[in-house]
Amino acid sequence: MSLVIVGSIAFDTIETTSGRRERIVGGSGTYSALAASFFTRPRLVGVVGRDFPKSTMAFLKKRGVDLRGLAVKPGRTFQWEGRYGEDSNQRTTVRTDLNVFGRFEPVLPAAYRGADIIFLSSIDPDLQPRILDQAKRPRLVAMDTIRFWIETKREAVLRELGRVDLLFANDEEVKLIAGDPNLVRAAGRILESGPSLVAAKKGEHGAMLFGRDFTFGVLAHPCPHVIDPTGAGDSFAGGFLGYLDRAGRSGPRELRKAAVYGSVMASFVIEDFGIERLRTLTPGQITGRYRFFKKLIEF
Amino acid sequence: MSLVIVGSIAFDTIETTSGRRERIVGGSGTYSALAASFFTRPRLVGVVGRDFPKSTMAFLKKRGVDLRGLAVKPGRTFQWEGRYGEDSNQRTTVRTDLNVFGRFEPVLPAAYRGADIIFLSSIDPDLQPRILDQAKRPRLVAMDTIRFWIETKREAVLRELGRVDLLFANDEEVKLIAGDPNLVRAAGRILESGPSLVAAKKGEHGAMLFGRDFTFGVLAHPCPHVIDPTGAGDSFAGGFLGYLDRAGRSGPRELRKAAVYGSVMASFVIEDFGIERLRTLTPGQITGRYRFFKKLIEF
Repeated sequence: MSLVIVGSIAFDTIETTSGRRERIVGGSGTYSALAASFFTRPRLVGVVGRDFPKSTMAFLKKRGVDLRGLAVKPGRTFQWEGRYGEDSNQRTTVRTDLNVFGRFEPVLPAAYRGADIIFLSSIDPDLQPRILDQAKRPRLVAMDTIRFWIETKREAVLRELGRVDLLFANDEEVKLIAGDPNLVRAAGRILESGPSLVAAKKGEHGAMLFGRDFTFGVLAHPCPHVIDPTGAGDSFAGGFLGYLDRAGRSGPRELRKAAVYGSVMASFVIEDFGIERLRTLTPGQITGRYRFFKKLIEF
Repeated sequence: MSLVIVGSIAFDTIETTSGRRERIVGGSGTYSALAASFFTRPRLVGVVGRDFPKSTMAFLKKRGVDLRGLAVKPGRTFQWEGRYGEDSNQRTTVRTDLNVFGRFEPVLPAAYRGADIIFLSSIDPDLQPRILDQAKRPRLVAMDTIRFWIETKREAVLRELGRVDLLFANDEEVKLIAGDPNLVRAAGRILESGPSLVAAKKGEHGAMLFGRDFTFGVLAHPCPHVIDPTGAGDSFAGGFLGYLDRAGRSGPRELRKAAVYGSVMASFVIEDFGIERLRTLTPGQITGRYRFFKKLIEF
């Protein structure tokens, strides 16, 4: 079992109704690797600048994240600035400085090439073939994408879909990719174009999992104080794939549980700014919330 | 066991992405009574004009709806015109002609006064005390409300809340009543002001049930072709209360099942314009979809 995650590692400046934080560690790769680290030992492929804090590297390692695929390049780390209004499902990007991430040439270390699961987390869709060509026969390839790539590199995103098993995307992005305002139909169309699974993330409304022969729905944890929604979707994917990697199988039973663990991990991340909540999170708290989710929907 | 529903009976003109229908029968009382009729024999209190079709009266009676509380007055029946865009959770009211409903003086026939459950479905909040003063000791009083009343008669809505056990409202309305953008907190505030239960309806995202000591979430049926969302919320409440009336108890176990039956009834109504789908719906189809809901969320 092994899970390789390719994604961004960033400094985020974030403003929410709970406050503002400047240059805190974020990025899709960071969130998904940390979330996955509660289930397996994920391998992270990404790039940072020389300004990236050693203490965060140490924290990632302590959580069991394999950093042999993390390149440190001259220059500055990717920076993102965003703002959330009262509706935490809506965010505005204020500024994006790609810095070293703009010249990202992902290389899978030899030890990563036999990975069972590969997750391409919201990266430039043009990078996908180069990454997959370095891998042997992964059991499962997953991708996430963002509105920016769907709007600016639509053809590349559609090509990328043809080579993956599982698409993670927000419900709005699923509709945008398929060009259909109905989520169920939109997911159905995407299932015809390559992936055998679509995980549609719906923020505070949870997530839906659409397969060719099954549909599964999971709620979000009813959270009275969303401090910072950043990274919720990446943590969903990280928890999902981390669990699947640990389970060693991806039948309907495992996929359902994976989606719940994804929602559980997302529910913790939003309880504090950035990756803070993951510093104190314990396996017992994860199990407790998993049980809460069972109770929440039981009838 | 008996359930009294006080609500509107209307002619609706509706435009959705699936087409347009003029002057079809609708109204909150109609939808909730019909949905409830699959579980119990609801008693409807409302008013129509002399233009109301005898065939619809006959259909309501055939479904077991008690119409002794339905007044037929000189004048025209309430008319509403609305339009839905691609997002079926959003609707625009084009026109409202209250007609006889504007002079609605609800009277509970003697046989209705000992009702176990009373549902005040989106009516003028000023009417509430007059109705409740006619009732003996109902086991449960429920209300639904709409943005229009919250915005134009806020004080009356808040007073109304003080006399009910259960509030049905859209998630946006729950937030608007409480003045809080977070649904969980907003529901919590409403629970402090009277009701012991808040059922927050979220359209395609399902519904959440908030009590003082429990939270329950139910999904919506993943529907690939929403023909007409009108009446979904009223049918949710009708199915919910119809089931509770039949169950004869309203403990947490019954409330959870009630919410699922509510979601089941809403899921059928949106499959056709107006009340059409309820004309062909069978108990077997309801049971089948209830089982589907179990499977949908099982992990």
